[in-house]
Amino acid sequence: MLPMQAPDLALKELERAAKLPGMRGMYLATHVNNVELDDRRFWDVYAKAEELGWTIFLHPIDTIGRERTTRYYLKNLLGNPYDTGVAAASLIFGGVLDAFPKLEVNLPHAGGTLPGLIGRLDHGTKVRPELAHMKQLPSAYLRRFTYDTIGHDDQINANLIRLVGADRVVLGSDYCFDMGLANPVGDVERLDMLSAEERDLICGGTAEKLLGLE
Amino acid sequence: MLPMQAPDLALKELERAAKLPGMRGMYLATHVNNVELDDRRFWDVYAKAEELGWTIFLHPIDTIGRERTTRYYLKNLLGNPYDTGVAAASLIFGGVLDAFPKLEVNLPHAGGTLPGLIGRLDHGTKVRPELAHMKQLPSAYLRRFTYDTIGHDDQINANLIRLVGADRVVLGSDYCFDMGLANPVGDVERLDMLSAEERDLICGGTAEKLLGLE
Repeated sequence: MLPMQAPDLALKELERAAKLPGMRGMYLATHVNNVELDDRRFWDVYAKAEELGWTIFLHPIDTIGRERTTRYYLKNLLGNPYDTGVAAASLIFGGVLDAFPKLEVNLPHAGGTLPGLIGRLDHGTKVRPELAHMKQLPSAYLRRFTYDTIGHDDQINANLIRLVGADRVVLGSDYCFDMGLANPVGDVERLDMLSAEERDLICGGTAEKLLGLE
Repeated sequence: MLPMQAPDLALKELERAAKLPGMRGMYLATHVNNVELDDRRFWDVYAKAEELGWTIFLHPIDTIGRERTTRYYLKNLLGNPYDTGVAAASLIFGGVLDAFPKLEVNLPHAGGTLPGLIGRLDHGTKVRPELAHMKQLPSAYLRRFTYDTIGHDDQINANLIRLVGADRVVLGSDYCFDMGLANPVGDVERLDMLSAEERDLICGGTAEKLLGLE
């Protein structure tokens, strides 16, 4: 499992890297050696990221249920969004987003499974003793995350924007992978639900804000 | 793993049960002892279900990634729809729906992760060598399944109906569990996108057809 000193080393590296020119944000895996993201050993890293104003960009690694996703490239096609869903649920239910109210977290692949299962997470929060500690429904945290446009389907991207707001969605590409988008800007321009202002936010404005480039 | 004789026993039981009065369909887990649903050992069961005109109603059990979903009731909230997604992908990519063109399969919990990740499955099918055998995109199989209304969110249910068609969605309840719906018919009646005819299909007409009760 996780060596106990690793989060301390990560914090030291974050403090070092934050002083380098051009550094604007950080990547974090959707779990760390199967330790979920609400583990208290990570909270000093979150506190530092919040203090720096750095967005945490999540991306899956060693995805959930590897032994069930060995064929048909399911470890990526399903495993990636599945892992992002576990990470988002851990941050919500584990109190990380409450403890760090200004922390920005970006969920890849159009939020993985979070948008499509938010009703189920809300219902569970209303009825299950495991979630009796929650003061708000998971859907109240949807706008605490930002999302990318890698839904690979106009309707899925449109549903996401309707759910979380155009100002919480940023252009994704997954360049240079075969699972990336051939025409990322075109995918946004085809969504005729968007005003020009909303389109500009998705195509750069919100990313500028997240990266402190305004 | 799966004892080799189990599918033979299942087939014998199916043949026996099919002769009992009132039997109209069958339940199947989303995997069988971690053997996925496209395994050839199950195909005689599918052939018999197709011959009988029986719908196979899937439901998750021993869900994917148990060790990652032990807290916050995630084994149900995420694990159930995750497992249904693996099952649906296995039936599509493993050729079961091609081999049994009249087989009806119902996916619980508003289709689990399938509707929200269909764009990703389509894209993967276009670019990945693991899926070079596919003659159609996964989205072409969406209407091969039926789905229930247990999305726990009006927008999620509406998105599903828009994606697969009102005639492929049937009323769900999950009665008598706490994850069930308090007012299943009300959840359908609130969807003002539906015509009266579509509402009647969801609230009973399609289920009558699937169960041979017309």
